[in-house]
Amino acid sequence: MARVVVEVMPKAEILDPQGQAVAKALPRLGFNGVTDVRQGKRFELEVDGSVDDAQLEQIAEALLANTVIEDWTVRRIEA
Amino acid sequence: MARVVVEVMPKAEILDPQGQAVAKALPRLGFNGVTDVRQGKRFELEVDGSVDDAQLEQIAEALLANTVIEDWTVRRIEA
Repeated sequence: MARVVVEVMPKAEILDPQGQAVAKALPRLGFNGVTDVRQGKRFELEVDGSVDDAQLEQIAEALLANTVIEDWTVRRIEA
Repeated sequence: MARVVVEVMPKAEILDPQGQAVAKALPRLGFNGVTDVRQGKRFELEVDGSVDDAQLEQIAEALLANTVIEDWTVRRIEA
């Protein structure tokens, strides 16, 4: 079995209301010095040997990311 | 400015309905071989020099993760 991490983040030019909400809440909680926050998703997949990199990319494109507004990366963390 | 990544994932023993939904959808889309999926959050923070590691951990604990059901990690990716 292999473990794969897929990270999905909003594209840089896309408004990130969740990230902005966190950024605005931080000073109210007494945390200063954080100038920007972006929030995305992180998936950990357990895959067997039949799943190759091309399929992982298709999975990211088809199901895990909305490619109109999000970028994604795929990396294997354990063979 | 420094960039920091905070990753928040459901604790291993906690039911992850979102991850299960993705895992069940994959075969329907023709993707086999994925035996488990866990879904969490990924934050990218831009912080100035006044923010130290202890404050980053407090930010993760206080705002970014629900420590009852989630684990978190903090790492600096760019100085």
